[in-house]
Amino acid sequence: MELPSKEPEIGDAFGQILAQCWAAGAAPWSAVEIIERDDGRIDAHDASTYFSEPERWAVLERWAWERAGGRILDVGCGGGRHTVPWAARGLDVMGLDASPGAVNVVRGRGVECVVGSVPDLLPGLGKFDTVTLFGNNIGLLGGPQTAHQVLDALATVTRPGGRPIGTGTDPGGDDSIHAAYHAWNVERGRSRGQARIRVRAAGIATTWFDYWFPTSEEITEVVAESACWALEELQRSPDGPGYAVILLRR
Amino acid sequence: MELPSKEPEIGDAFGQILAQCWAAGAAPWSAVEIIERDDGRIDAHDASTYFSEPERWAVLERWAWERAGGRILDVGCGGGRHTVPWAARGLDVMGLDASPGAVNVVRGRGVECVVGSVPDLLPGLGKFDTVTLFGNNIGLLGGPQTAHQVLDALATVTRPGGRPIGTGTDPGGDDSIHAAYHAWNVERGRSRGQARIRVRAAGIATTWFDYWFPTSEEITEVVAESACWALEELQRSPDGPGYAVILLRR
Repeated sequence: MELPSKEPEIGDAFGQILAQCWAAGAAPWSAVEIIERDDGRIDAHDASTYFSEPERWAVLERWAWERAGGRILDVGCGGGRHTVPWAARGLDVMGLDASPGAVNVVRGRGVECVVGSVPDLLPGLGKFDTVTLFGNNIGLLGGPQTAHQVLDALATVTRPGGRPIGTGTDPGGDDSIHAAYHAWNVERGRSRGQARIRVRAAGIATTWFDYWFPTSEEITEVVAESACWALEELQRSPDGPGYAVILLRR
Repeated sequence: MELPSKEPEIGDAFGQILAQCWAAGAAPWSAVEIIERDDGRIDAHDASTYFSEPERWAVLERWAWERAGGRILDVGCGGGRHTVPWAARGLDVMGLDASPGAVNVVRGRGVECVVGSVPDLLPGLGKFDTVTLFGNNIGLLGGPQTAHQVLDALATVTRPGGRPIGTGTDPGGDDSIHAAYHAWNVERGRSRGQARIRVRAAGIATTWFDYWFPTSEEITEVVAESACWALEELQRSPDGPGYAVILLRR
């Protein structure tokens, strides 16, 4: 018998997952982040990685984290993996996340945090010396079309001489398990490494959003076209497709 | 920008999950079983539970498992959680699962196993002394409409004097987190405890199928209406909504 099925309700699925995980002491697999992609792919991740300690990070993540200084804005801060240890080091840090649940968790961990997202940053955040897009959050550039708006928005919250630092992952070539998705992206006029995804948890899901895995060449090109930013440094992961970029105001 | 999204491809998602988990030594969370329900709910489970050892089972599961004897057919045998230890005890057991991947795993563990499902059992399986529907597989009755066909099919493979043994879970009342789903079921003419679900793994999904969580009263009624079976015993879990039933040919 054919029965029509329902779509999940729109809600703060990411925040619900983080809250559940944090309430369980961030124990491994105490909460599962389910990410659905618009080609029907689904993946499950251990949400406790959003709380992992610096000694468990990849070399590149640690390298990028050490580069931050002064007043820091962490864009897409998740559970506070980066902000909490910065604060513990005495740095002045503010988290920003689109998920109210994530913001609650980070505040509960004692770090200033506000609800918000790029490119539509709320006014009044002030200026920062370092603006971070960690944990692959170069993805928040969304794609080549929206990247400029995001970069412009970051410029409004960066002090002269300040730096955005981001980490990303090269989408890989034709041998990638995502090659068919990349081809579908190109076919419909999108950038190969874009991913339209949503987070699902129990009965709710976030809205679909674009997350971008640009090649290091693509991110270099987007920055070069930007009126505000120059690429100061591009650092590749010693052991994978990840990279970090440090931008400098032109 | 609105973009049409795709449905996952139909495939043996359950088998893929079990194979991945077994290849990883059935380590906890080495594979995640993602179950989607037709109201948009999604849940993630540790697939290693499909391989858990008898000493880790719930009291009721162990009780039901001890009741099996003679030649055993395990319907919906999954990764062989029940069949492998029966075989280790020297019992004559055959597994049956709709998932070719699950069947491969069980065969790899040294137990006879065939692809198949209820009610459409392949001919030639022979007759069994015990037919088990374990791990909540009373759910495979599907619902009150299909339960009779399934019970009739089980009769064709059960020897005179033989017994089907099944375990199920009471769906719970209005305080259940599934109460809204139960109400939706009633609204569309289904039994409260029916669940239309599919298993998803990466880019593939099983077809949607009905799994039934009848109350113990409902299962008692369905069996009473059956021409083939009488309810010999109904055993409730000492610590939860689970129950086991043992049937006897009328």
